[in-house]
Amino acid sequence: MNKKLGKQSVTFENMLTIASAASVVGNKEGEGPLGARFDEVHEDAMLGKDSWEQAEAEFLKKALEKATEKARLTQSDIEYVVAGDLMNQSTSSSFVLRDMPLPFFGIFGACSAFGEGLGLGSMIVDGGFAKHVLIGAASHFCAAEKQFRFPLELGGQRPLTSTWTVTGAGAAVLSLGGGGPYVRGVTTGKIIDMGIKDMNNMGAAMAPAAADTLEAHFREFGRTPDYYDVIATGDLGYVGKELVVKLMAEHGYDMSKNYTDCGIEIYDRDSQDTHSGGSGCACSATTFAALYYPRLVSGEIKRMLIIPTGALANQMTSQQGETIPGIAHAVAIEGP
Amino acid sequence: MNKKLGKQSVTFENMLTIASAASVVGNKEGEGPLGARFDEVHEDAMLGKDSWEQAEAEFLKKALEKATEKARLTQSDIEYVVAGDLMNQSTSSSFVLRDMPLPFFGIFGACSAFGEGLGLGSMIVDGGFAKHVLIGAASHFCAAEKQFRFPLELGGQRPLTSTWTVTGAGAAVLSLGGGGPYVRGVTTGKIIDMGIKDMNNMGAAMAPAAADTLEAHFREFGRTPDYYDVIATGDLGYVGKELVVKLMAEHGYDMSKNYTDCGIEIYDRDSQDTHSGGSGCACSATTFAALYYPRLVSGEIKRMLIIPTGALANQMTSQQGETIPGIAHAVAIEGP
Repeated sequence: MNKKLGKQSVTFENMLTIASAASVVGNKEGEGPLGARFDEVHEDAMLGKDSWEQAEAEFLKKALEKATEKARLTQSDIEYVVAGDLMNQSTSSSFVLRDMPLPFFGIFGACSAFGEGLGLGSMIVDGGFAKHVLIGAASHFCAAEKQFRFPLELGGQRPLTSTWTVTGAGAAVLSLGGGGPYVRGVTTGKIIDMGIKDMNNMGAAMAPAAADTLEAHFREFGRTPDYYDVIATGDLGYVGKELVVKLMAEHGYDMSKNYTDCGIEIYDRDSQDTHSGGSGCACSATTFAALYYPRLVSGEIKRMLIIPTGALANQMTSQQGETIPGIAHAVAIEGP
Repeated sequence: MNKKLGKQSVTFENMLTIASAASVVGNKEGEGPLGARFDEVHEDAMLGKDSWEQAEAEFLKKALEKATEKARLTQSDIEYVVAGDLMNQSTSSSFVLRDMPLPFFGIFGACSAFGEGLGLGSMIVDGGFAKHVLIGAASHFCAAEKQFRFPLELGGQRPLTSTWTVTGAGAAVLSLGGGGPYVRGVTTGKIIDMGIKDMNNMGAAMAPAAADTLEAHFREFGRTPDYYDVIATGDLGYVGKELVVKLMAEHGYDMSKNYTDCGIEIYDRDSQDTHSGGSGCACSATTFAALYYPRLVSGEIKRMLIIPTGALANQMTSQQGETIPGIAHAVAIEGP
């Protein structure tokens, strides 16, 4: 049994179906181009809670429940939950799991959480340790701004390189067997740090990691970008996407035809004032669930590569002058 | 192939050897009862770095390198690194991986990281995705006090229920096959929250989670505590250990004979002023590596259960009046 493909990639012995994907978002996301596609849009981005942090956890709870329901399962069918978020000590994930008495693996890969979760979840299911694993990722614009940059009340001006953290959560159920769409391969990322220090330019910080994982994926699977109908990175935005196209061209790969970024898809650049685009753990998770998953199910997309991207820093490391490492995990999904 | 044992436990098809375990600690740990057993004791708990946070990352780096070396491997033999720590956004793990270009899964389970890492690592290796996985966990007393409680410069008095975060890092290489000691089973924890709010009484916050996982482990494996030569929780300290003994007695299990806590083993209660004992991600990881692993190798211990425990909260959730959820993962290890 050799499931390994080079240093970073694996394939699977079993057919691993993404049995459902769910998206629950706030009002700003609802006003964007994917508005009608989300499972739930909440006008109140606080969800009736007392704090942004509690709201982030509540978004995750709703997404986990929705994904379970859409997979026609109940909570007791779920064997593991693998979830992550952006809050210090991943409190959104931990806190919401208080109400879900299920074996839990907390992950941290910043906004790459959805990709890391799909990767680990695939190994858990293919390894024979579970039939159903629930994966989730959440973020909240207000909580993220407060934690990573400035309190919103300060009214700071956001530079044009900055991205807008998606308020919401995405979740998916990964199941053994089933009718697809299938996770067919995973390329796990390495930490890449090219020396970017600007907490308002996460796209540039993460782009080299995305390119590194993409290059490894194509090389180890012996593919070129045109193997896929869609290639979507997680939350690089316009700034980061452009860098990926350039970096990949240096490796000899043409990314000009079928490559986009979830942070570009989720907001309208002209009307929503999000500058470089969307970001946050929820960006790739909700965009996948709302935009790509239904097209994989319908057959409109036959093969896609999703590469959730994460910028690994905190306010203190930034204040200490540290650079921002990035990571990206690629998940190859094929329709039924 | 049924590797599942009840809702939370799994066994493995392959023999999974813990090929090495390494411990690198600071001066206070070096002065404790395990002083002579650690691989490296550093008089300078800053390790020559400019900040506590950078020092924590450096401890992790040294432990990861030491474990690799002790397993007689080189960095390029390692297929995945699974690591976690206590810093906001797990920066110790992410930052040290900048210098180790290896596929990386960042985990967050607070001080349960070593258990979560062993659990996921075992599934990755047994699932056929790697022959060698490197697992690491780090913490630093000064960085943790600053982040979770009060700046040290404030000179705050620590209550008697408080534990002392271990400064250092532990790491282990998990390999396919080999001569043991073997990971023979894993019981993955659920989030348990019994309403404790005191950030200076983590032992009480985590004890119910430890008892929950222990009860599930014994029930699902059909064992009683006397199956093991040693049962060691991660970092409950004296306060939490006593609670576990009581809670398990209510479940009908006698934990009075062979049960201890790594936080009790690592410091001397009378002379080291650590009050309830040791804590932090490094507590179970370094105690396992220094105290138990060599005895498993020598055959002095035939079977042990290690249950790293984590308290899942941050300073802000605490200020918002939230309680402290706990989690614990049990790993059953048997000698060659």
